[in-house]
Amino acid sequence: MALIEAMIIVADNLHVIQPAIAKAVQTLDPAPIRELALRCIQAGAQALDINSGPLSKMPQERMRFLVESVQTVTDLPLILDTTNATAMAAGLEACRGRATINGFSLEPAKIERMLPLARQFDADIIGYLLGANSQVPVEADEMMAVAVALFEQYTQAGLDPARLIIDPVIAPLSWQEGARHNQAVLKVIAGLPDLLGTPVRTIAGLSNLATGRLPLERKITLEQTFLPMLAAAGLDMVLTNVLHAPTLQTARLCDQLLGDRIFA
Amino acid sequence: MALIEAMIIVADNLHVIQPAIAKAVQTLDPAPIRELALRCIQAGAQALDINSGPLSKMPQERMRFLVESVQTVTDLPLILDTTNATAMAAGLEACRGRATINGFSLEPAKIERMLPLARQFDADIIGYLLGANSQVPVEADEMMAVAVALFEQYTQAGLDPARLIIDPVIAPLSWQEGARHNQAVLKVIAGLPDLLGTPVRTIAGLSNLATGRLPLERKITLEQTFLPMLAAAGLDMVLTNVLHAPTLQTARLCDQLLGDRIFA
Repeated sequence: MALIEAMIIVADNLHVIQPAIAKAVQTLDPAPIRELALRCIQAGAQALDINSGPLSKMPQERMRFLVESVQTVTDLPLILDTTNATAMAAGLEACRGRATINGFSLEPAKIERMLPLARQFDADIIGYLLGANSQVPVEADEMMAVAVALFEQYTQAGLDPARLIIDPVIAPLSWQEGARHNQAVLKVIAGLPDLLGTPVRTIAGLSNLATGRLPLERKITLEQTFLPMLAAAGLDMVLTNVLHAPTLQTARLCDQLLGDRIFA
Repeated sequence: MALIEAMIIVADNLHVIQPAIAKAVQTLDPAPIRELALRCIQAGAQALDINSGPLSKMPQERMRFLVESVQTVTDLPLILDTTNATAMAAGLEACRGRATINGFSLEPAKIERMLPLARQFDADIIGYLLGANSQVPVEADEMMAVAVALFEQYTQAGLDPARLIIDPVIAPLSWQEGARHNQAVLKVIAGLPDLLGTPVRTIAGLSNLATGRLPLERKITLEQTFLPMLAAAGLDMVLTNVLHAPTLQTARLCDQLLGDRIFA
């Protein structure tokens, strides 16, 4: 038995889906990026996910710009979130601290182009529990099978299991099988250490839960209700909108309730 | 695998610790009892716990009065909550519907005086995971050992496992080992069906979590954070202050998130 640490809160706010961020990337203006990063840190972020999108134009310059802009205001760990391997490599090179690649899956292109970057840049890497054709498994059994296959790909690449972070992929509740899928996610988080024979870390994107036209208050209460379930299952890192103050309060209460979590 | 039903919400509000209820019991005035029962039902209670205290004076008359007063306004299932076996018998006799005895433990007096009432009145009964001297076990292993001993006492009395409800006893967070104890509670709720080889029901008293001088808002947010953990562990019934509206909202969201919970 080993004590495991409190859940780490990763901001998902630095995302090109935000118009201010998209514009800042286009014009290479660091101010809006610095400002948002600082707001996230003030809100309680312990790591920052930088979601640059695919960056079809100037991928290296733009990802480097994003990383450097954030690094002018913080030394927090960064998670680089793009499907563009060229942008990913440039971003990893720009990271001063330990960085995390977000991410790879059983999709052949990801295994061929993303996984090698973990070794090349000595980075942690997030592995998604998606099938080879990017479909989302519904049942816990299928997710477990994907986790085993993903773990094999990872270790066959000669990488250290301690540097892998598995993301079982929270589904929107609006999906027909969303609730069932998310219950399976809880089982998988709790069951992975036994399944893989090693205490592999887990991350989950809480903002996926309540998408679309739901009122903000409803989204937040859904986050506040699912987060304790994830925490009790043993989730190590939560990727979330840190500007949802009640959700962050819930994260802190989870730590109070599960502060000395024991990993059996 | 069988589908299990949504978590049942049991009001713990009808309690002689409330001055209005204590006075109503002394003067045999049904109005305050009816009024509070109706408020609980409007708030979403699906069953009512009637906590009469030990009723050292006129136990039969007073418990009968409590049950009858509540039954003038509702047919919801009643849970009778007293350490006084004479009061319990009188209350069970007065119940029109299926009643629940709250409760027994390994304490010899409880086994001798409470357990037989379950057979005599064809009632469900709550069994507490407390040691024979009423001490509270801290670790999951100890709780599991108590659960096995309790289940043996119960089945040796010739009673049906489907009528037993186990309460693993939530501890106040203010206790030194409160958080650790409550983490063990989650493990025990999830592990009991496998341990006992039967899908025995569980109940937990959420109001125990945050006691004493904490601000009400803090108590409620703690309830809102621990309840989803209990629900995800598979809790069947939650005994709670149903007038805490945000807590009830959380209970409903738990059902939305775990609505088609699968009992493996």
